[in-house]
Amino acid sequence: MTKEIKKDFTKHVNPLIGTSKMGHVFPGATAPFGMVQLSPQTNFEVMFNENGSYNSKTYEYCAGYQHKDSTIIGFAHTNFSGTGHADLGDFLVMPTTGKLTLDPLKTKEGTKGFYSRFSHDTEKASPGYYKVNLDSYNIKAELTASERVGFHQYTFPKSNDSHIILDLVYNIYHHDNKNVWTFIRVENDSLITGYRQTKGWARTKKVFFAMQFSKPFKSYGHKKYNKETYDGFYRRFKQNENFPEMAGKDIRAYFNFNTEEGEKINVKFALSPVSTNGALNNLKQEIPHWNFNKTVQETKDKWNNELGKIDVETISEKDKTTFYTALYHTNLSPILYEDVDGKYRGLDQNIHTSDGFTNYTIFSLWDTYRALHPLYNITQPKRNNDMIKSMLAHHDQSVHNMLPIWSHYANENWCMIGYHATSVIADALAKNVGDFDVNHALKASTNTATVRYFDGIGDYIDYKYVPEDKSHSSVSKTLEYAYNDWCIAQIAKKVGNSEVEKEYLTRSTYYKNVYDPTIGFMRPKLSDGTFRKNFDPMDTHGQGFIEGNAWNYGLYVPQNIDKMIEMMGGKEKFSNQLDELFTTEIADKYISNHEDITRDGIIGNYVHGNEPGHHIPYLYNWTGHPKKTQQRVRMIMDTMYSDTVDGLCGNDDAGQMSAWYIFSSLGFYPVTPGSPNYAIGSPNIKEATIYLENGKVLKITAQNQSKENVFVKSITVNGKKITDNVLSHADIINGGELIFEMSKE
Amino acid sequence: MTKEIKKDFTKHVNPLIGTSKMGHVFPGATAPFGMVQLSPQTNFEVMFNENGSYNSKTYEYCAGYQHKDSTIIGFAHTNFSGTGHADLGDFLVMPTTGKLTLDPLKTKEGTKGFYSRFSHDTEKASPGYYKVNLDSYNIKAELTASERVGFHQYTFPKSNDSHIILDLVYNIYHHDNKNVWTFIRVENDSLITGYRQTKGWARTKKVFFAMQFSKPFKSYGHKKYNKETYDGFYRRFKQNENFPEMAGKDIRAYFNFNTEEGEKINVKFALSPVSTNGALNNLKQEIPHWNFNKTVQETKDKWNNELGKIDVETISEKDKTTFYTALYHTNLSPILYEDVDGKYRGLDQNIHTSDGFTNYTIFSLWDTYRALHPLYNITQPKRNNDMIKSMLAHHDQSVHNMLPIWSHYANENWCMIGYHATSVIADALAKNVGDFDVNHALKASTNTATVRYFDGIGDYIDYKYVPEDKSHSSVSKTLEYAYNDWCIAQIAKKVGNSEVEKEYLTRSTYYKNVYDPTIGFMRPKLSDGTFRKNFDPMDTHGQGFIEGNAWNYGLYVPQNIDKMIEMMGGKEKFSNQLDELFTTEIADKYISNHEDITRDGIIGNYVHGNEPGHHIPYLYNWTGHPKKTQQRVRMIMDTMYSDTVDGLCGNDDAGQMSAWYIFSSLGFYPVTPGSPNYAIGSPNIKEATIYLENGKVLKITAQNQSKENVFVKSITVNGKKITDNVLSHADIINGGELIFEMSKE
Repeated sequence: MTKEIKKDFTKHVNPLIGTSKMGHVFPGATAPFGMVQLSPQTNFEVMFNENGSYNSKTYEYCAGYQHKDSTIIGFAHTNFSGTGHADLGDFLVMPTTGKLTLDPLKTKEGTKGFYSRFSHDTEKASPGYYKVNLDSYNIKAELTASERVGFHQYTFPKSNDSHIILDLVYNIYHHDNKNVWTFIRVENDSLITGYRQTKGWARTKKVFFAMQFSKPFKSYGHKKYNKETYDGFYRRFKQNENFPEMAGKDIRAYFNFNTEEGEKINVKFALSPVSTNGALNNLKQEIPHWNFNKTVQETKDKWNNELGKIDVETISEKDKTTFYTALYHTNLSPILYEDVDGKYRGLDQNIHTSDGFTNYTIFSLWDTYRALHPLYNITQPKRNNDMIKSMLAHHDQSVHNMLPIWSHYANENWCMIGYHATSVIADALAKNVGDFDVNHALKASTNTATVRYFDGIGDYIDYKYVPEDKSHSSVSKTLEYAYNDWCIAQIAKKVGNSEVEKEYLTRSTYYKNVYDPTIGFMRPKLSDGTFRKNFDPMDTHGQGFIEGNAWNYGLYVPQNIDKMIEMMGGKEKFSNQLDELFTTEIADKYISNHEDITRDGIIGNYVHGNEPGHHIPYLYNWTGHPKKTQQRVRMIMDTMYSDTVDGLCGNDDAGQMSAWYIFSSLGFYPVTPGSPNYAIGSPNIKEATIYLENGKVLKITAQNQSKENVFVKSITVNGKKITDNVLSHADIINGGELIFEMSKE
Repeated sequence: MTKEIKKDFTKHVNPLIGTSKMGHVFPGATAPFGMVQLSPQTNFEVMFNENGSYNSKTYEYCAGYQHKDSTIIGFAHTNFSGTGHADLGDFLVMPTTGKLTLDPLKTKEGTKGFYSRFSHDTEKASPGYYKVNLDSYNIKAELTASERVGFHQYTFPKSNDSHIILDLVYNIYHHDNKNVWTFIRVENDSLITGYRQTKGWARTKKVFFAMQFSKPFKSYGHKKYNKETYDGFYRRFKQNENFPEMAGKDIRAYFNFNTEEGEKINVKFALSPVSTNGALNNLKQEIPHWNFNKTVQETKDKWNNELGKIDVETISEKDKTTFYTALYHTNLSPILYEDVDGKYRGLDQNIHTSDGFTNYTIFSLWDTYRALHPLYNITQPKRNNDMIKSMLAHHDQSVHNMLPIWSHYANENWCMIGYHATSVIADALAKNVGDFDVNHALKASTNTATVRYFDGIGDYIDYKYVPEDKSHSSVSKTLEYAYNDWCIAQIAKKVGNSEVEKEYLTRSTYYKNVYDPTIGFMRPKLSDGTFRKNFDPMDTHGQGFIEGNAWNYGLYVPQNIDKMIEMMGGKEKFSNQLDELFTTEIADKYISNHEDITRDGIIGNYVHGNEPGHHIPYLYNWTGHPKKTQQRVRMIMDTMYSDTVDGLCGNDDAGQMSAWYIFSSLGFYPVTPGSPNYAIGSPNIKEATIYLENGKVLKITAQNQSKENVFVKSITVNGKKITDNVLSHADIINGGELIFEMSKE
């Protein structure tokens, strides 16, 4: 980035967007791609059943916060952004005053919980900064963060009974009993270190911390919620109070202060995947001072640096907020996963040092290979290169010799299907992004694609489709494996390995084997070669698809759209089928009891709130009806995204929903990651200037733009007319001018 | 060691000595001070209650083995030698044939447990080698070990159903539910890695392993004994069989083989305190081959190197076995606690690298400061220097800023009282052993002695004794703190810090404050300055002493024996009191329900089976009756030690009981560690040649030696007559000739 940052883009970001309903994003403070996501947790009200056990409503609380809530239980240091499953919520910190209670909830004995009431009136959220008043205690809470350090500022009332609670029991998860072990040391009167190991979505997750107070506490203590044996101990120490060594499964610690009216106490809270020494070093290197506002400003500058990579003019101010909040959401994860010295915990649980790259985790690849990683090939090529190298390191550390499916704090959580790391690699290669070892990448890809015990791959290889009686969601798997295999063929081609290219090109045609021409749908096939009976293409449950029905998910052949359309009866028939998809109202019964498919994210029978259909609106381009694509994408942008707290129609899915919006706003979309081409849609911006890492600048102009003018009359790239509705990556990355002429007709 | 090893001393060692009753030693294979103690576990029969929970009899099984048992449950890689508390038993390996069972015991469903019958007829134990037939399976099991690697050799019968079980549930401990987490990776068809974290006596203990088979297994699997969530997993893999990634709380894994008649399968099993990569590296560095006999021979050579440091001629062959087995027992712990590259887990749970020393753990200091560490100042000065540096590193990593009390695999288990690391340091300084930083050692010592919240130290400082109403075992604590403070004064003197020397010399006189001259006993005093009522000096329970009564423990003022005797009424009175101690039979009621004081270890009311009285037989020297010392020590050597499986009269206490024997056999004993002097007793050897690390040689001769000739008529050191029954360390360390002339009278 050579341009000077002058504008403030952060003012167009509202981190509260998507915090209502199922967006699963968090409103707290974080640096771009930071390891710390310091954010308020409101979920205690629904989290627990009356008996204290967790309940099933926690899915709403994947990021710990729901806008409808009126109480805050504390501020946690790790939060997913928009994932389809709950986890994290590590290291809850809560300031209180008055009689100390270490129970988050009201207890049977009538003890008040330590949660506080709050009002949205006092709440402010912006990139890298969050503020709220904790009304129950008259404490103003402010949060900011560098990459590895959360920075708290609590303004207390006068009290001889002020407390800061460190809760190591609190978790975001749908099971209680997630903790495995916690370990705390009170190093001195203002420094705490420790770690927590959990067995949640990540089976063996360990996070270390160092917590520093700006003011020495006058006393401290803890409560242990399980009896852990520490022989010889009981007769020597009063362990619960002012004893500097705590360990056990479930622990809450507290630190007591006298405070004057308006006195600020700051807390710096550093994380490390490696060790407490690593956390301490991160703390010292990243925030060596106590100037809260300095960190707020530095993190704001970092955000402006990222957000300013695309400088847009929109039709309305609301659109601008929607756009920049979406762009913000694409810069939250994957997250940095290494200490300042490059050390990180590998998948094998050994400590590794990143050599020649920066290590990242949180790869929700079934979601993010579609548009998020392609977006990074424009806005974050250096980071995307690092992410691919992180995936290769994951492969090297994997006992399965597999690339990540869903990389999660030195764990593989195996969520969703396919081996889409191959798509991320192929897309980067197609766009000449990165300097990773391509031969290594090919080997890692073929290793992954041949793990016979993984999710039906052995059967897929033997039968040339995944038989439904051998493996559930067999159609989805067949379709995605076939696409992934095409990606591997692209990598092999790049390497010049024609044998592997040929093998995987053959595998990439297996999608045909689950298509039933007699009904015109992809459908589950059994190992005896017959299609399974009792098939309902509207149903999202048990029909051979995962999180989607045949109408949506059955159109998934991005590697060969022309062939698919031909197979399905030709362009007109296919175009009509798309029309029907967007207009036939799906019945409630087909989507009931589905966490990821809700009415909010549906148009007719098209599901935008979940990923399998994200490419569908662009498919009209292949039927000779590009105007229908243009109309649909503008409609989706207008109805499925907004600048309100419920502005996301489904989980943001680690940035994928937002990346779809960014691409579509700019007027094009990567329908086939792994190819250098984009399908042209209809931009909703008036102007966009993209500052590329190679120093070049692309200016996109939508002439004659308005809410009504959704049709693209003409497109020129640097004066050259585009007539096939296809944009190449070179058209973007070489900079210059991309001009859309918009019209009402 | 410059001398050539020619003799085989290992043939005089019988590791089975002490494996019956309460010796708590193990018969398995280990290298001197090795990190691996690979030993058979026989305790399943008494370990579990009928409902599968652990029972209280486990105290007998501190080292996993009782000679009376007829079944073996497997071979574990970590075992304490002679401790007063149970723990370890990590990584149980068991070969079986026939239908696989993963339950160690017979189950309700009638499944046979995987244990095997065995007979002592097929058992052979010698330093670094153990052999036994597993009769239930017709498998011959042989074990050896290098410092960090256990080496198994199993000779199988012909079977298509041969198994090697890796049990990560099995534990030596008195509670079930000790496991915190286990993690296993099947790296390939013959290599396994993983770790186990437990919360036993060590609260946060983590041991990593790498396990390599000489032959690829044909299949494998595991059983998990608790449900651990691994989301997304269930729908992808059949986890239990041939799936290379296992994790959870309680896991047993198995590996299947076809074997021919007489086929040997070897297993190398490396440990690491750091990581699985550390374990793998240890494995590769220490045993890069599959030659089992080579490792047996190498470890035997290492043992001969250690045992050969004292070459003795004894009155009988039995005495020789008792002597060398005792010497063997003094070389088992402390244990090495670092990888071959010097990395180790510190008390703060961070990974450190030993710089300029080798790191050790297992410091059972309340036991071993008495004679074991003083013995090391003769036989192992380099190791003792390393141990002191390990203790200083422990201090530096301690959140309490304390030297170890009982150092235990990167944990402090706080067992027993005092801060006797100060004694080990003072003794080394008094004997010019080591090159550790003396100023650092003094600071670490005074830091430790001023931790007010530790075990009554604050009160001890304030009241000048520990008040019984503030802290139990108050007399024991007062006496030991006073002695430890004298040790600190000696360190301060060495440094030239007269202020600290004076302060701690003052504290070293506090023993006087718990002496009641009206009854002639040390007794518990209350915080109001009065002695507690209801005092019984015979009772070992609740009388202000820990694991001892006033008759024994009340004679504990090693730093000023003359003053103590004067205080207690003078030499004759004191001598008579000692006579009474050795002759008055203690009633059963006083020692019932005491694990560490059993009839086997008692002479009259004198308790040799536990440590507080170990110096007492030598106190006659201070009363003008050295002959009584001579008589008593010979009697104790003859009656409390033998060459039979029940040859230890109490826990060997990590080598202290055995170190007492070695010193006493040689004719002298370190009554006051921290002073350079030894009290002369009565040797029971005929000749002993001590090969010192400084290259010098001390030859001890007991002229006219016999079972009856227990009295020392004269002593000369290099021709100089000794008349005060005191030997100085210089007399030993300078080499030459020490001649005792023995007589019947």
